[in-house]
Amino acid sequence: MKHVVVVGGGFGGYQAVSDLKGAGVRITLIDQRNHHLFQPLLYQVASTILSSAEVAWPLRLMLRGREDVTVMMAKVEGVDTAAREVLVEDGQRIGYDYLILATGAQHSYFGNDQWAGFAPGLKTVDDAIALRRKILTSLELAEKETDEARRAQLLTFAVIGGGPTGVELSGIIADLTKRTIWRDFRNIDTRKARVLLIEGAKRVLGAFPEDLSEYTRGALERRGVEVMLGRNVSDIGAGFVKVGDEEIPCGTVVWAAGVAASPAAKWLGVEADRAGRIKLGRDLLVPGYDDIFAVGDTVAVEWTDGKTVPGIAPAAKQMGSHVAKTIYARVVGKPDPAPFTYRHQGDLATIGRFAAVVKMGRVKMKGWLAWWVWGIAHIFFLIDTQSRIVVAWNWLWTLMSGRHAARIITRTGGDPRA
Amino acid sequence: MKHVVVVGGGFGGYQAVSDLKGAGVRITLIDQRNHHLFQPLLYQVASTILSSAEVAWPLRLMLRGREDVTVMMAKVEGVDTAAREVLVEDGQRIGYDYLILATGAQHSYFGNDQWAGFAPGLKTVDDAIALRRKILTSLELAEKETDEARRAQLLTFAVIGGGPTGVELSGIIADLTKRTIWRDFRNIDTRKARVLLIEGAKRVLGAFPEDLSEYTRGALERRGVEVMLGRNVSDIGAGFVKVGDEEIPCGTVVWAAGVAASPAAKWLGVEADRAGRIKLGRDLLVPGYDDIFAVGDTVAVEWTDGKTVPGIAPAAKQMGSHVAKTIYARVVGKPDPAPFTYRHQGDLATIGRFAAVVKMGRVKMKGWLAWWVWGIAHIFFLIDTQSRIVVAWNWLWTLMSGRHAARIITRTGGDPRA
Repeated sequence: MKHVVVVGGGFGGYQAVSDLKGAGVRITLIDQRNHHLFQPLLYQVASTILSSAEVAWPLRLMLRGREDVTVMMAKVEGVDTAAREVLVEDGQRIGYDYLILATGAQHSYFGNDQWAGFAPGLKTVDDAIALRRKILTSLELAEKETDEARRAQLLTFAVIGGGPTGVELSGIIADLTKRTIWRDFRNIDTRKARVLLIEGAKRVLGAFPEDLSEYTRGALERRGVEVMLGRNVSDIGAGFVKVGDEEIPCGTVVWAAGVAASPAAKWLGVEADRAGRIKLGRDLLVPGYDDIFAVGDTVAVEWTDGKTVPGIAPAAKQMGSHVAKTIYARVVGKPDPAPFTYRHQGDLATIGRFAAVVKMGRVKMKGWLAWWVWGIAHIFFLIDTQSRIVVAWNWLWTLMSGRHAARIITRTGGDPRA
Repeated sequence: MKHVVVVGGGFGGYQAVSDLKGAGVRITLIDQRNHHLFQPLLYQVASTILSSAEVAWPLRLMLRGREDVTVMMAKVEGVDTAAREVLVEDGQRIGYDYLILATGAQHSYFGNDQWAGFAPGLKTVDDAIALRRKILTSLELAEKETDEARRAQLLTFAVIGGGPTGVELSGIIADLTKRTIWRDFRNIDTRKARVLLIEGAKRVLGAFPEDLSEYTRGALERRGVEVMLGRNVSDIGAGFVKVGDEEIPCGTVVWAAGVAASPAAKWLGVEADRAGRIKLGRDLLVPGYDDIFAVGDTVAVEWTDGKTVPGIAPAAKQMGSHVAKTIYARVVGKPDPAPFTYRHQGDLATIGRFAAVVKMGRVKMKGWLAWWVWGIAHIFFLIDTQSRIVVAWNWLWTLMSGRHAARIITRTGGDPRA
């Protein structure tokens, strides 16, 4: 029986495992974390609406009934393509007949890696919990701060990058400080918090039509977000962000500007684009190999007009499906399927309560209708019934009560600023 | 207007703040964490049934409507009784007219503080998340371990202390490994996990009638817990627990054996008992002071038969109420109320799914009826409607699906063993 090793249990890797059900292969799924993460809602964990268990599910539990699948929680350190083995931490080697690399992306600071410590991003559950702690702790410190300038600094939140994540984060931080939480404090007025969205391009949501970008900018500004367009960040350090020549004192900085592929290209020594993504043909095979596939954020595959397939969940899932189909064809001795073609289902982004933008084919929507479409679509795409019910309930509760359910600061040890 | 400072937002401190509503005083509640914790359900966070936000609530949110209360998240470092000021980290001083110390308890290793690193306890949300990570990571490591002895070690869980917390934890770890999670693994059979409950006395649940202790021991053993009675732990180190002369290789050790009061007695330089608790009269005033009260786990107050009031939530709440009543009487110029008398409402402990013991007055219950009483009582005592609904739903879901909702390992960084 052929052994398929899948590295990474995100959207692409999990879809491949899912579609290989009944293909007559043995599968090992390796991930350094124990869970599949529904990244589109991660910003709601960071912003105190959801708990992490509501957007992440143990891979083992998801694959409990699949006797053909072994889940392994381990960090992959390389691939020995000659021996056809995946190298795992502690020197273990996992042999494969087919390898699927679905290792995703990480943050890129465009050569300024020293910024990472001051401006963390939002890719993992741990990132989200850390950002939640940072936001809530800034408010706590501001409440007991007596120095006016230092207090204003703690109440300034900067989000860098005007894509969907940046829009969602800045919108929800504005909702949190200006609508939800202000009555909880006595010494500060969190409604006066500054929430900055800093974007180098001339508009937010560059992937959307221009009128939706314009609507989004307006909707953010009505919520109290200061949208800074065409402005580049020149430096980030302890307690400040520098935009061009202007240094802005800032308690919290979040990085939502750039991603780079995981080191899969380096493991294999193959060509990568500027963002570190493996350049693939439409067979999704890594060039030079006939048994190594790659999918999702870690690859660059041509789409249309010289663009590459976007780094979003539906694209990763479609690639995972295509690779599963290819492996199945080979196992049963059929020719490879027709080359992969990406079907773009649309773009969705939410701005805050009752405001979102949707573009699907020729349909454009904005405002509360788009917000309902966004919400229902996301509940539908959640993995299990339990999460659907709990997330739907939490959203309903947040709307009805004006309260956020998940405001606990964890890891409070001695120093709340750690 | 008199200023009341309350240190600690647990059951006792929060009750005092609650009862001082409308008393015509100004209140500052200081806690080093941002939340009130419902400790009786904390073991369910550790054992992957509940998320932390379901058993903890932001103090600010709970006191949002109380304009007379300021919440301050800060670590208290001492009291200057001459100046009547509480000393807070960073050198801040908070003046008081009345001070209520409700600082709770911490773990006591009976002089073996070096055990703390190997056998953490369960007092805070962070403790629960750390224990959850430890249990789940042990199973992950066992799944990929090839050495038989090392694998058996990873699958051995020892709980030290046969009080309610120890009984609950060992019972639920047995339920988790032997009933819930075993189908998720391919290389190990988690049903063969060893779960040890080690107690120095001759029976578990020493505060309960003997027949309920005996029932509990049997119920634990039927679930697969090895109950070791009359056995003392002589040493704990990396990967082992030593019981008498027997060294047991052990992946996870949890401390549920002893508590010691927080350092409030040291702050004041007053007499403490062996467990560090301030010895109080029935006026709940700290001896030598007319303006400093203390309540809850940090004090020793006489009850009956030479026993002291037990360190449980209802006792702390009753003390909090009594102190609020005293302060109110003083503010309106009335004499102090009659001395504090503790009303014991009963003892409850749960063993695992459909098994609990209850002793309330003359009523004794055990088995599934006691379990329902326990569950309904705990849902009733939760702080807000949102938590009641979500906890009730999670329990129902766990019962129906045989799945645990909160199995995400957080802080997985590079090394899952960290």
